[in-house]
Amino acid sequence: MAFRFRPVEGAFFDLFAQQAQHLTVGAGLLAEMLADGADHEDVARRMRDAEHAADETTHEIVRKVNSTFITPFDREDIYGLASGLDDVMDEMDEVVDMILLYEVKSLPAELGAQVEVLQRCAELTAEAMPRLRTMQDLSEYWIEINRLENAGDKNHRRTLANLFSGNYKALEVLKLKDIVEALERAVDAFETVANTVEQIAVKES
Amino acid sequence: MAFRFRPVEGAFFDLFAQQAQHLTVGAGLLAEMLADGADHEDVARRMRDAEHAADETTHEIVRKVNSTFITPFDREDIYGLASGLDDVMDEMDEVVDMILLYEVKSLPAELGAQVEVLQRCAELTAEAMPRLRTMQDLSEYWIEINRLENAGDKNHRRTLANLFSGNYKALEVLKLKDIVEALERAVDAFETVANTVEQIAVKES
Amino acid sequence: MAFRFRPVEGAFFDLFAQQAQHLTVGAGLLAEMLADGADHEDVARRMRDAEHAADETTHEIVRKVNSTFITPFDREDIYGLASGLDDVMDEMDEVVDMILLYEVKSLPAELGAQVEVLQRCAELTAEAMPRLRTMQDLSEYWIEINRLENAGDKNHRRTLANLFSGNYKALEVLKLKDIVEALERAVDAFETVANTVEQIAVKES
Repeated sequence: MAFRFRPVEGAFFDLFAQQAQHLTVGAGLLAEMLADGADHEDVARRMRDAEHAADETTHEIVRKVNSTFITPFDREDIYGLASGLDDVMDEMDEVVDMILLYEVKSLPAELGAQVEVLQRCAELTAEAMPRLRTMQDLSEYWIEINRLENAGDKNHRRTLANLFSGNYKALEVLKLKDIVEALERAVDAFETVANTVEQIAVKES
Repeated sequence: MAFRFRPVEGAFFDLFAQQAQHLTVGAGLLAEMLADGADHEDVARRMRDAEHAADETTHEIVRKVNSTFITPFDREDIYGLASGLDDVMDEMDEVVDMILLYEVKSLPAELGAQVEVLQRCAELTAEAMPRLRTMQDLSEYWIEINRLENAGDKNHRRTLANLFSGNYKALEVLKLKDIVEALERAVDAFETVANTVEQIAVKES
Repeated sequence: MAFRFRPVEGAFFDLFAQQAQHLTVGAGLLAEMLADGADHEDVARRMRDAEHAADETTHEIVRKVNSTFITPFDREDIYGLASGLDDVMDEMDEVVDMILLYEVKSLPAELGAQVEVLQRCAELTAEAMPRLRTMQDLSEYWIEINRLENAGDKNHRRTLANLFSGNYKALEVLKLKDIVEALERAVDAFETVANTVEQIAVKES
């Protein structure tokens, strides 16, 4: 049998895949925001739209959990996964928002490396979500996300050390530290999603 | 029948109303603290007293939940509402405490607008608590609090942009950012209370 | 009867005592880190080892809870105590890590006083854990931790006021504030552990 789940349950997987798609859009906008000569106002507006679209998908999952008798896995795990994916979007949205608000003109190159980590995490998450249907081949996803989170953490620490090295003025450090910390929370949020998927897979196996 | 609840249950409503009264006192002290020529030591001392009084009311609610057989609504909702109201007080207390501790002499005018939002939230919350008894006319309260939270958020973002505009020295930005963020958490805490009231009203209706 | 618990249950107490021992090692390393002429790289490496050892003990407790039929007290309380002890270690580890990362050369004297509070908390916690076996003489432990947390809080506020007094450059304030706040979270984490012990003792008495 190709599918473990009935059609009504399959809708959940489509919605999780949709949520993850929003994250790849969000990570892409983050990369745009960091590019030289980016129109910050315009990117921030599109980020806001992407964040609202992600919110809408999250609410649809919650409504569906509340109105469906049989769910493909535990209700609390569905909530956990949906809100975990939503948290990633919120953190990425906050980064874009702070760059706009603080009128940061030039961003340290390390931020680009961190955004690449986020883009890779978003792609892997988007590829993994449809595999929830069969619960096959998910371990490579969470192992790779954990590896990326480690790389992101090293990157984060190097960025902080650089920020405090004396090359930046205090006011610039204040702005950039907020942004750098939000980027790290976004990477952590991807790891939380991967941990949730691992727990679900262990339970269901 | 005028009252849905029995006398023993009515005591809970009196205590919630009392908690909200403490919040109007706290918001008033916050406004005093921001006024020109305020005696920071004296206002901070009175804020500490108000915070202790609010704590005492919170503990009384918790004791009453633990010793009462029938409660007017779910025990966890009573805890949630009581601790939500308590959180508002803690955030407002923290703002006053930081102004004293950091020896902030002059505060940007936008902070006054944010404190007005808090005073209005406190009044609305104090007016709404007695209406929990009948569960009537509560929707206008939570709608208005959500509107105020939106206004507060816009205010907050404008204040941050101004803080980082180059008009303030880095050390001053560091102090004011802490204060501004605590003010925003206080507004958010009022919204959390309103959301809790909405959930209770939906359940009981 | 000398012991209230059976051998299998006794293993939990040994593990809690072991966790608390890690905390005394951690607090000692924190004191080393603050000493004049400390080799920051070396101390940070040993702190990382201590933190990993503490993690290992935490995981062993979690595994034991999951595989043991009868536990000495509620499973959720065992989780709560284990994760509370783990949180203390994480905060102390973060302090050491930030001193290394920010390349802080000279630390205000008040930090030493706060680390002494942490060392005293660690000793008291290590002495108290074996007394969980009999649930005797625990009240003096949590009362003293609460007193130390009050002293730590006064210390913390004095340090912050000094940081913002104009004696430090903004960049230095930014670094030190992070460190000072992590130290305070470590003290608070000890208080959370003491509160958990108090709740367990009250339930079991």
